[in-house]
Amino acid sequence: MEKSKLEQQIEFIIEVDKIKNIFRQSYISDGTRRENDAEHSWHLALMAIILTEYFDPKADVLQVIKMVIIHDLVEIYAGDTYLYDVKGNETKAIREQEAADKLFAMLPIDQGKELMDLWHEFEDKITVEAKFAATLDRLQPVLLNYITKGKAWLAHGITKEQVLKRQADILNGPKEIADFLIHLLDDAQQKGYLLK
Amino acid sequence: MEKSKLEQQIEFIIEVDKIKNIFRQSYISDGTRRENDAEHSWHLALMAIILTEYFDPKADVLQVIKMVIIHDLVEIYAGDTYLYDVKGNETKAIREQEAADKLFAMLPIDQGKELMDLWHEFEDKITVEAKFAATLDRLQPVLLNYITKGKAWLAHGITKEQVLKRQADILNGPKEIADFLIHLLDDAQQKGYLLK
Repeated sequence: MEKSKLEQQIEFIIEVDKIKNIFRQSYISDGTRRENDAEHSWHLALMAIILTEYFDPKADVLQVIKMVIIHDLVEIYAGDTYLYDVKGNETKAIREQEAADKLFAMLPIDQGKELMDLWHEFEDKITVEAKFAATLDRLQPVLLNYITKGKAWLAHGITKEQVLKRQADILNGPKEIADFLIHLLDDAQQKGYLLK
Repeated sequence: MEKSKLEQQIEFIIEVDKIKNIFRQSYISDGTRRENDAEHSWHLALMAIILTEYFDPKADVLQVIKMVIIHDLVEIYAGDTYLYDVKGNETKAIREQEAADKLFAMLPIDQGKELMDLWHEFEDKITVEAKFAATLDRLQPVLLNYITKGKAWLAHGITKEQVLKRQADILNGPKEIADFLIHLLDDAQQKGYLLK
């Protein structure tokens, strides 16, 4: 018997539960374990709600939240690639596109296309909504690193220069948040959470 | 020195990271461990995106997603209360209101009120958006229980009648989803995932 549309969607909803086992480099705030992609994505959505006022008032917040909720789904098949992993980042785009093709094909055609478009919009960082989402995606692990006294940064021997180089999405974003980041990284370096 | 508005908001964003350590009764789909509130809330937001078409077209999906993202924040201080825990549910409202008072007071006043209103809207289940959110909140653990062969249900000796009694939010919701639930629970009972 052919699956109903709802059954297809429910199967997708169950399949993506696997994202709860995709672990990132960042530690949760008490430092006891790494954070997974579901938790990270939830945290970004919460930040979108709390920090809206700093972003372009024309930004469609629903679109931003949709993007942050789905942006890491591809990692279910492609795995997490650490921001500072040069080699891993060379093959990231191909691995993730293959993952997206496989995953979104589980959905009814129109809806699969909608999620694919949403994911590409996030990756392309052109729309105001995608820029908003990218700033949050960069800021959240910095906050976790700071609060865990640089646990993931120190484990990978990351310097303040390395962090700054990868933070264009924050530095080109809202001024208050960019200023906050610079202040936080200075403080982190002074406290020894980041290498010089 | 007084904290800036952004600093207050960032402190809140870091504080709510604790929700990643609030564990629920449901197991994640591979059955290896319990699910936490951050993961659960992420899953509901994803479901809101995927299942929108079954709900009232007048529903403001942004409002639904905001509700599901923040609905369990109070559990950071009040803990998770299992749906079938009769005693725990007697004191739940008071414990959670105290938690909300404490947590939302961390935010700038207007924003704290906004989140409090959002949480009450979710709890009251009167608006179309709150009903939409409540259906998702009930359906998600049923899916996890089904896929883990009734792991949490069997651990607590839950019967199909008990589940059905607590599923008014689904049964009074969209017909397709209510029918799907009834079919799933029949199947679960037949397979021995739920007691008779």
